[in-house]
Amino acid sequence: MTEEDVHLFDVLVIGAGAAGVGVGVALKHAGIDNFLILDRYQVGASFERWPEETQFITPSFPTNSIGMLDLNSVAIGVSPAYSLGVEHPTGKEFAAHLCSVAAVFELPVCKDAEVLQVKRFDDCFLVETAEHTLRSKLVIWAAGEFQYPQAKPFPGAELCRHTATIPSYEDLDGDDFIVIGGYESGVDAAYHLSCYDKRVRLIDAGCPWEDETSEPSVALSTFSLERMQAEWFEAQTELIPHCPVSKVLRDGDKYQVHAAGGLLFESRSAPLLAIGFEGSLRLVSDLFEKREDGYPLLSEQDESTVTPGLFLCGPAVRHDHHVFCYIYKYRQRFAVVAKAIATQLGLPAEELENYRKWGMYLDDLSCCGEECVC
Amino acid sequence: MTEEDVHLFDVLVIGAGAAGVGVGVALKHAGIDNFLILDRYQVGASFERWPEETQFITPSFPTNSIGMLDLNSVAIGVSPAYSLGVEHPTGKEFAAHLCSVAAVFELPVCKDAEVLQVKRFDDCFLVETAEHTLRSKLVIWAAGEFQYPQAKPFPGAELCRHTATIPSYEDLDGDDFIVIGGYESGVDAAYHLSCYDKRVRLIDAGCPWEDETSEPSVALSTFSLERMQAEWFEAQTELIPHCPVSKVLRDGDKYQVHAAGGLLFESRSAPLLAIGFEGSLRLVSDLFEKREDGYPLLSEQDESTVTPGLFLCGPAVRHDHHVFCYIYKYRQRFAVVAKAIATQLGLPAEELENYRKWGMYLDDLSCCGEECVC
Repeated sequence: MTEEDVHLFDVLVIGAGAAGVGVGVALKHAGIDNFLILDRYQVGASFERWPEETQFITPSFPTNSIGMLDLNSVAIGVSPAYSLGVEHPTGKEFAAHLCSVAAVFELPVCKDAEVLQVKRFDDCFLVETAEHTLRSKLVIWAAGEFQYPQAKPFPGAELCRHTATIPSYEDLDGDDFIVIGGYESGVDAAYHLSCYDKRVRLIDAGCPWEDETSEPSVALSTFSLERMQAEWFEAQTELIPHCPVSKVLRDGDKYQVHAAGGLLFESRSAPLLAIGFEGSLRLVSDLFEKREDGYPLLSEQDESTVTPGLFLCGPAVRHDHHVFCYIYKYRQRFAVVAKAIATQLGLPAEELENYRKWGMYLDDLSCCGEECVC
Repeated sequence: MTEEDVHLFDVLVIGAGAAGVGVGVALKHAGIDNFLILDRYQVGASFERWPEETQFITPSFPTNSIGMLDLNSVAIGVSPAYSLGVEHPTGKEFAAHLCSVAAVFELPVCKDAEVLQVKRFDDCFLVETAEHTLRSKLVIWAAGEFQYPQAKPFPGAELCRHTATIPSYEDLDGDDFIVIGGYESGVDAAYHLSCYDKRVRLIDAGCPWEDETSEPSVALSTFSLERMQAEWFEAQTELIPHCPVSKVLRDGDKYQVHAAGGLLFESRSAPLLAIGFEGSLRLVSDLFEKREDGYPLLSEQDESTVTPGLFLCGPAVRHDHHVFCYIYKYRQRFAVVAKAIATQLGLPAEELENYRKWGMYLDDLSCCGEECVC
């Protein structure tokens, strides 16, 4: 056993993406120093792997000077609009931003550390990586979703290609694409393919292009809706709503997409799956109770109800019907988690009160869900 | 004297633009009903007159459901991103949004009422329009700037055309333009002209394209910086920094722009002035003390220091070095003014406390001015 192995951390954060970096800064602000952020690759690795063309749907604007956080900031005092000079960062740009945040706040990041197992043992956690077993009083699971695409939604899904595995739409062979899933990533795929003069059929079980709500977790973003109005999108893309896919088959050099009502779509290129992510949570699924919808059941402090000391940060956080996807939503819970942890460690963490005025401390969920009247 | 003339209003708001509509909603929320908003034309008229191509530089996104106001909202519960479905509204689009806000909140707007004079008389104000003299206990000056371009910055400026007077860049005759002023509206002019394949020389006394700050009142917006990277902008536009213009002359069919250091620029089209606005304040300049920089001196409640009962809303509001331009900044003072007025009228205005959690109640200026670290 190496010296490292016997050290007892106060907190281990799993994942150095938006959630891991954001909650890491909050831990620092709470006065916690004895912690480590582990990442399978490095800071922002999942963003780094986004398709080259894919951009954030939420616009960044440097509004720090009026006390309003940039929508895509993971911490107070930073703004990707300022550091990157773009409104809709690409994944690679945002990864660079996260690296600069980690550097400025001197976050203790341990890269190339793939977590294989998290176990509760006596009063602490044992976190196993390929090379070490680390010990910690508390654990924050902040691993992302992007590297864990949802892969088996229907028979034959293994014949399709998930959009998360595409390095660049420009490099895809073929002229004719079927995209299954019409939300943000489906529209993104169709938009870029149509930019490259490909023909696209965009299939969805519902009709996300017409949802009338101002709730951004449900409605398609303005960014995507505007893209759908581009001349080339309209010319190249056929929208096929209310068409649940039942199976995908291969017939010689063609792919067959079978849908409800006996509909059949064929293409020579593998159909693209734009249907979201399973997430990394299965790695720790035994440490959480499950809600009816499969998401982990959490305490009011985002702690596991069956494994005390294990917290969850990121887009998988759910409370009642509140969905915390997108950075500007789940970032509002970083301080809640940091405060709960500081309290367990006996620290006052007064600096975290500052998070409230920045809209970064959401402990009253009653304010959520307000829609627009116009 | 008509019956209307003897009615005593609690408040008259001058101007039904972003400031007038926004503070009007705040008055409603404060429980004030006996008020009227006067506009020379109609709701949003100044935005209606923007050049057709000009868009908001601040991005809209419908974040109401997480308690974060759309950057371009003038009131809680509304979002131009949601009602318009665009990220950077044009002036005409935003005017339509303001009309819908006025309708939803049932604001008492009196259009086609040009205010000629505001006088303090006994314990009330007399507000003269072409047709009526209205009486009111209190007045909010919320008239805009756009219809009052700064016109005489140097000799010969009258030979130039202010960008605020251009209905559409597409319809401008000529192939070769000199734009004087390189901030947002100058870059906007150059961008659209270059889109239409015109050659542009963009002249500024400083070098706004390189200011390194995250303060959006000073730095060029991401929107403009991204436009400057467009292929056609780079191909068609020549940037001429550190070049204060001394005079403009006409020589036959040519315009001559003389600048510091003996530089001379010629064009057949009238030079375009993109140098900001004088504002409407001269109409009531005798009712305010002046700061050293010419802006009106205001109490902590944005009330005139020499004419009690007269309040100011809009982009001309200044406190110390704090500039409240852009809607997302000056909107933070609507509730401050509404609260001061409610207090004078003996109303508790408790509902205004709700403005705080939406970042719409800025009474502590110490939080302002925070820049980004990265």
